Amino acid sequence: MHLEKKVENLQIAYIGGGSRGWAWSFLKDLAQDEAMCGNIRLYDIDKEAARRNQIIGEKIMAHPDAVSHWQLSVAHSLAEALHGVDFIVISILPGTLQEMKVDVHAPEAYGIWQSVGDSVGPGGFVRSVRTVPMYVEIAQAIRDYAPLAWVINYTNPMSVCVKTLYEVFPQIRAFGCCHEVFGTQKLLCEMLEDMCGISGVTRQEIKVNVKGVNHFTWFDSASYQSIDLMPLYAQFAEKYAQTGFDREEKNWVNVPGQTNQRVKFDLFRKYGAIAAAGDRHLAEFMPPWYLKDPKTVEKWGFALTHVDWRIEAWQESVNRSMRIASGQEAVELASSGEEGHLLMKALLGLGDCVSNVNLPNSGQIPNLPLGAVVETNALFRKNAVQPIASGNLPDNIVPLVSRHVYNQNNTVCAAMTQDFSLALTTFLNDPLVNVTAAQGEALLRTMLEKTAQYHAMPWK
Amino acid sequence: MHLEKKVENLQIAYIGGGSRGWAWSFLKDLAQDEAMCGNIRLYDIDKEAARRNQIIGEKIMAHPDAVSHWQLSVAHSLAEALHGVDFIVISILPGTLQEMKVDVHAPEAYGIWQSVGDSVGPGGFVRSVRTVPMYVEIAQAIRDYAPLAWVINYTNPMSVCVKTLYEVFPQIRAFGCCHEVFGTQKLLCEMLEDMCGISGVTRQEIKVNVKGVNHFTWFDSASYQSIDLMPLYAQFAEKYAQTGFDREEKNWVNVPGQTNQRVKFDLFRKYGAIAAAGDRHLAEFMPPWYLKDPKTVEKWGFALTHVDWRIEAWQESVNRSMRIASGQEAVELASSGEEGHLLMKALLGLGDCVSNVNLPNSGQIPNLPLGAVVETNALFRKNAVQPIASGNLPDNIVPLVSRHVYNQNNTVCAAMTQDFSLALTTFLNDPLVNVTAAQGEALLRTMLEKTAQYHAMPWK
Amino acid sequence: MHLEKKVENLQIAYIGGGSRGWAWSFLKDLAQDEAMCGNIRLYDIDKEAARRNQIIGEKIMAHPDAVSHWQLSVAHSLAEALHGVDFIVISILPGTLQEMKVDVHAPEAYGIWQSVGDSVGPGGFVRSVRTVPMYVEIAQAIRDYAPLAWVINYTNPMSVCVKTLYEVFPQIRAFGCCHEVFGTQKLLCEMLEDMCGISGVTRQEIKVNVKGVNHFTWFDSASYQSIDLMPLYAQFAEKYAQTGFDREEKNWVNVPGQTNQRVKFDLFRKYGAIAAAGDRHLAEFMPPWYLKDPKTVEKWGFALTHVDWRIEAWQESVNRSMRIASGQEAVELASSGEEGHLLMKALLGLGDCVSNVNLPNSGQIPNLPLGAVVETNALFRKNAVQPIASGNLPDNIVPLVSRHVYNQNNTVCAAMTQDFSLALTTFLNDPLVNVTAAQGEALLRTMLEKTAQYHAMPWK
Amino acid sequence: MHLEKKVENLQIAYIGGGSRGWAWSFLKDLAQDEAMCGNIRLYDIDKEAARRNQIIGEKIMAHPDAVSHWQLSVAHSLAEALHGVDFIVISILPGTLQEMKVDVHAPEAYGIWQSVGDSVGPGGFVRSVRTVPMYVEIAQAIRDYAPLAWVINYTNPMSVCVKTLYEVFPQIRAFGCCHEVFGTQKLLCEMLEDMCGISGVTRQEIKVNVKGVNHFTWFDSASYQSIDLMPLYAQFAEKYAQTGFDREEKNWVNVPGQTNQRVKFDLFRKYGAIAAAGDRHLAEFMPPWYLKDPKTVEKWGFALTHVDWRIEAWQESVNRSMRIASGQEAVELASSGEEGHLLMKALLGLGDCVSNVNLPNSGQIPNLPLGAVVETNALFRKNAVQPIASGNLPDNIVPLVSRHVYNQNNTVCAAMTQDFSLALTTFLNDPLVNVTAAQGEALLRTMLEKTAQYHAMPWK
Repeated sequence: MHLEKKVENLQIAYIGGGSRGWAWSFLKDLAQDEAMCGNIRLYDIDKEAARRNQIIGEKIMAHPDAVSHWQLSVAHSLAEALHGVDFIVISILPGTLQEMKVDVHAPEAYGIWQSVGDSVGPGGFVRSVRTVPMYVEIAQAIRDYAPLAWVINYTNPMSVCVKTLYEVFPQIRAFGCCHEVFGTQKLLCEMLEDMCGISGVTRQEIKVNVKGVNHFTWFDSASYQSIDLMPLYAQFAEKYAQTGFDREEKNWVNVPGQTNQRVKFDLFRKYGAIAAAGDRHLAEFMPPWYLKDPKTVEKWGFALTHVDWRIEAWQESVNRSMRIASGQEAVELASSGEEGHLLMKALLGLGDCVSNVNLPNSGQIPNLPLGAVVETNALFRKNAVQPIASGNLPDNIVPLVSRHVYNQNNTVCAAMTQDFSLALTTFLNDPLVNVTAAQGEALLRTMLEKTAQYHAMPWK
Repeated sequence: MHLEKKVENLQIAYIGGGSRGWAWSFLKDLAQDEAMCGNIRLYDIDKEAARRNQIIGEKIMAHPDAVSHWQLSVAHSLAEALHGVDFIVISILPGTLQEMKVDVHAPEAYGIWQSVGDSVGPGGFVRSVRTVPMYVEIAQAIRDYAPLAWVINYTNPMSVCVKTLYEVFPQIRAFGCCHEVFGTQKLLCEMLEDMCGISGVTRQEIKVNVKGVNHFTWFDSASYQSIDLMPLYAQFAEKYAQTGFDREEKNWVNVPGQTNQRVKFDLFRKYGAIAAAGDRHLAEFMPPWYLKDPKTVEKWGFALTHVDWRIEAWQESVNRSMRIASGQEAVELASSGEEGHLLMKALLGLGDCVSNVNLPNSGQIPNLPLGAVVETNALFRKNAVQPIASGNLPDNIVPLVSRHVYNQNNTVCAAMTQDFSLALTTFLNDPLVNVTAAQGEALLRTMLEKTAQYHAMPWK
Repeated sequence: MHLEKKVENLQIAYIGGGSRGWAWSFLKDLAQDEAMCGNIRLYDIDKEAARRNQIIGEKIMAHPDAVSHWQLSVAHSLAEALHGVDFIVISILPGTLQEMKVDVHAPEAYGIWQSVGDSVGPGGFVRSVRTVPMYVEIAQAIRDYAPLAWVINYTNPMSVCVKTLYEVFPQIRAFGCCHEVFGTQKLLCEMLEDMCGISGVTRQEIKVNVKGVNHFTWFDSASYQSIDLMPLYAQFAEKYAQTGFDREEKNWVNVPGQTNQRVKFDLFRKYGAIAAAGDRHLAEFMPPWYLKDPKTVEKWGFALTHVDWRIEAWQESVNRSMRIASGQEAVELASSGEEGHLLMKALLGLGDCVSNVNLPNSGQIPNLPLGAVVETNALFRKNAVQPIASGNLPDNIVPLVSRHVYNQNNTVCAAMTQDFSLALTTFLNDPLVNVTAAQGEALLRTMLEKTAQYHAMPWK
Repeated sequence: MHLEKKVENLQIAYIGGGSRGWAWSFLKDLAQDEAMCGNIRLYDIDKEAARRNQIIGEKIMAHPDAVSHWQLSVAHSLAEALHGVDFIVISILPGTLQEMKVDVHAPEAYGIWQSVGDSVGPGGFVRSVRTVPMYVEIAQAIRDYAPLAWVINYTNPMSVCVKTLYEVFPQIRAFGCCHEVFGTQKLLCEMLEDMCGISGVTRQEIKVNVKGVNHFTWFDSASYQSIDLMPLYAQFAEKYAQTGFDREEKNWVNVPGQTNQRVKFDLFRKYGAIAAAGDRHLAEFMPPWYLKDPKTVEKWGFALTHVDWRIEAWQESVNRSMRIASGQEAVELASSGEEGHLLMKALLGLGDCVSNVNLPNSGQIPNLPLGAVVETNALFRKNAVQPIASGNLPDNIVPLVSRHVYNQNNTVCAAMTQDFSLALTTFLNDPLVNVTAAQGEALLRTMLEKTAQYHAMPWK
């Protein structure tokens, strides 16, 4: 018997295969890892983008530093993409940035300001309503064409996407990956340098106990080697409570500008645990303490991102993909810092791995409802993702998180059943929707109308 | 063997034995029920009031219509009151109406308006902080002097009082009784007359499935004989949605004025279940949709009660107690409509009974946390109170209720451990505390200072 | 609006409509209750029997003492029987008494003796295997033709039948009724007379807390009015521990002979709670302490019933049905003591009722697995059956009961999936199957072969 | 700030510090690991043994291959041993081998044969009764003198010991370690060689999902790199089902003789999962299929160990300790294969580790009762042991395991409360106690009398 340290002939489907950021990172990570090879089927409703990515992917595989070779193809249907694959990656944009413009900016007329608008808040809600039908279709296709495949989701709203997959096909082997936790681990590395003069620590060396929901995760313990980082963070948060700790934070389509962690520090001082996502995400899960108005946002050291900026950045990335595909610009090969390919290897038996992941709660956080999609650490092994018992959320934090858990469950249910009444009461229960019921209803109707192309009225 | 259809020589302790409304009702109900007799020990920190009630109680027992005779005495300590008793009734005023004035009116400076201020909201929170130490003392005394006694609590904040009893002495046989559900049953009787011309129905004939927390309970089914009342209520709520359904609603120290059920109707139209408490209570559990300002309150057909009115009414009731004790005013004997004596009889084996009651959740509402004090129906039998499986709260209502469940649990914990940080984050999580975190903290500190006589600073 | 104290035009399907004992009792109870009337559709695979029961039923309805009139018809298919009905009653014989002869007597070759053989033990297991496919078919038909009907099951093996209904159609409104608990309540009446000279007490006046699984239920509290019966039963069990308390116990097709309660008394002395079923049932749920061999059975005061006797009794009851149908024998009208019609009335809103019932565990017994079919009290009301929180089984009893709970769940699963491996390990886990694994397998294969007409081999 | 890759000045208490096998292994492992150093306090009721071990320990630390130095001392009381320590190791012999002789051989008079007699069966039960009071005392001392220490238990009966610790002091940071799982991992290594010709694989490279209770654990998945070992094991079990797979199995005080895995293979063929303990342990958890009589035992390829042999081996080990202490025999330094020191390092932040461990069930095995002590994998990290969600036990195995779970819980409860009735019914519920109730009671009384020195009668 041959001992397989390399797994060959893997079949991967990439849904949203025309994406730039995520797809390129994934392909580059694969090209640099010699333990796996096989075929990748790119599927995208924007076929041109998928086609360009096939060409770009082939350039990546042909790069002199590439150590593994993958065949790329474009699939013309979900069925063709999924049939018999081993792994499925999903990273799509639900709708277009025109809809996102409504998500983010329509609520401003009611005094509701959002820094991202993709997870919760009125924008996150309507984005969810738009996304659920897409994920229903994807889940059905997975059930029919690749029921045993491992499914990695990168799309936001993360919790809603993963929940929808499991609602439609409970036996699905899906989990959601997000790098926000990584960013907070990196902050702890910077803290070690700033407070103790210890430099060169990597984020992987920072051990944390993760609990919460995506983009609203918390650490109640953190350590580096034998050092307990919690008391150190308490000092760090005090030290920079007023001034902030300046730091370039790049995430979600490389948003410009800085965040200085003041929201994170304020949450620690009030709640005693480390909120583990970017401040622009965290602020949206709280009452409008940090997002009362643009002036308040500025005071707390982060920024509102206008979707016009995203639209420009999007166009520039399309242009860049054309340049690379046509050979005008060279492909560069670098590690992305993402872990998708490592998780795949662990699932193939090529090295155990502990990482944070979004999965239905089977008890990993006992004081959140079973079945809700939560984010904790999990052990990845040959053919298994096993959540790690992460313990209760602290008593003062569980009300904050459970409010969103209920909302996310109800959002999926309302979108799947076209139940307007449940949609409305869910919308009104969002902390940012701090208006009268009548105003909330007017706003919701306006926003739903604008996204009706993806989730048609009339609702029941 | 003698077959006991009458139970004699019962020992009852009445904590808050100087109270007027509750104590008089209870004594009159006992006097008119021939199935039980024995001794009642009145205990009150206001000994004069207890002494007056002893005299009034003796007059009640001497009334020509009284059919059972109870001996009354005044106990000078909790130990003396409780030692070896069979039943304990608790109805106290935590603090005085001067503290209640702060509870209700201090938040107005921050634009927070409260219609009662005794359950939730900033007033309910601070009242809770004041009450918990009193209930810790009572629970310890019950544990030490009457561990097997049945304990009936009538004091508000109901959930917090019952929770504290169980936290201190988990084996306690305590439950909390409240008549708000009765009021909504009576509204359904009036609906039957108004909508169907069926008159003469008593509230006991209206069968309801009760679920929620005290003062924020819901019916998801209701019937009268073979008639399902839910579709009828839907029509009723539509019919009176704008005008309200005028109706004298007397509760909590006979508050003046009317409520026309518009809050209740609006909640039904949004959430699809019958909110089962007075509108003045219900409004306080929601975001400030109904309590935005006095004008909004008026529009929704209910009233803000100034505590000055309560102070006057209190003094008048003291005066009346003096008149009755001195013989200037005669005692009248009438049934109170309360069920305390019926529950006692059921516990003695003299007739089973189903009624709504506040108890720790052992699964009667599966989608609320175990151990939280919830209100549902229970079966009362010889030596047993057994909750009835009442099913999940509807998906759109569970977020509203669980928010208060978390807050009530955290309130008890914060007050017992003097944890200011938990107190503050709990206070800020109340739907009515719709201000910035800094404003909320300033308000809380002000209010706690005013109640420091009962729950001394410094907190930890 | 007319106030309905009588509900008319009810539609009832009776599956097993050719049965004698159960069907006649049910029809007579209906005829004597003026609160309901309508139509009854008799369905039976033995159409002649159904036809005779239609005639007999018409005679019952024409009896001078009948106060309500029901129309009877014979349905020729499940679809015809069920379409649109309000209530469904199921009382069938799974297979014939020839199969039951194998169930009961085949294991004797391996030294395994059974007193009934219809619930657990090797006989109960194989009867279950035979019954599950029938109940799968019935459940599918209910799902398709009468999804909102209330379903009352009387067939044994009770737990397995009810479990199968819920497995196939989780939204079914089914519950199982059994009178074994009534028999133990009657024993407590006799105890009151024997020990205290209190006579004339009815079994309905004996209040009990029921918990366990069908035919292996336990009372951990029992009372009559204000009398706690548990200490009295302790004396009673001691008094008659050796001699037994002679008493005619009629159940399951009027088995002849007596049981003197010695098994029940022995269980109380060992376990401290009242086992609440006939001794012949109880003995089968325990290790072979009471069923070691016929001599041991005799010593414990009960009897092994040969199925030949049942076959004779069956033929006699067929003959009697012919005599009644042909007018040779007159119909008599008397109350059966069963509660089916009272539960129906409660479900129609004509009077609340608390009774013991078999339902999936939703928390009524917290220390048994959720979803297992358990027997406890429940509150019956307009359109609702709500289990009553009955508390944990005592620590020493829960292992005995849970062993059967696991076996019953696995039996249903094995029979539905044709999983021989699960069937075998389940069979071997029965306390009466006290033989080597090899012997157990041989016995199981023999027995399955004999019932293959109803559950065909080959298994997977 | 200094980055601690070595942790110094650790304080360890070793209860049972006079033991030979376990203490010597532990000391040798520590001596060979340069990451930790500090002090070890040996405590033993046999002070001479502890004193000898201090001398032997000093020789170990002075060995030329030792890389870390630990100071050793003898503590004269639990208080002195525990005060302020960081880690506590417990490995004691509960009672003496004279009591063990009764445990193992007294039941033979009733036809009950035991291969080890230290976990379950009549011997395991009585050993538990004897051990519980010792562990109550230890737990109280830990609570009083070292409440934050990490506690590693090696003593059998493992589940009962760990359960008692948590019952007395719920906040204890205790876990139990056992090497039986390692033995089955090693068998899988041998299988890889035998079936595939892959040699040199270490047991640490065999990844398994562990679930069950100590000495009755199961693997439902196992892999080596990318190879799924479950189908391979199915072939392996078939291949050696009749002949057995001969193999030296050394455990528990180096029992002589061989076991050929036939029990393990038979369990796999019946239940479909890999039983992961030695056959001599496994056989005791099942009905007496494998332990019917000595002839049957022989047929299944394992051996009954007479306690006389253990007594001899014990004396020989005492002699050897004297020889080493006196310098007649040299100390040898080798790795023990145990993981205790690795788990300590992980808890200090010096390297994460996944290993199997005994802990109260907080959901790691959802279909076993919460709070029961179960064995699964856990992630060891700085200051944390977090169970890994291991999933349900298979449907056919959960009844086997839960029977022992109930028994172990009831054993602890009976021993702590001196409840003879619970002790008897628990004893009778053991699968090996396959006798009548009267015989079981006689046996239990005889055995308890012989251990009365450690757990005095009269019971309640």
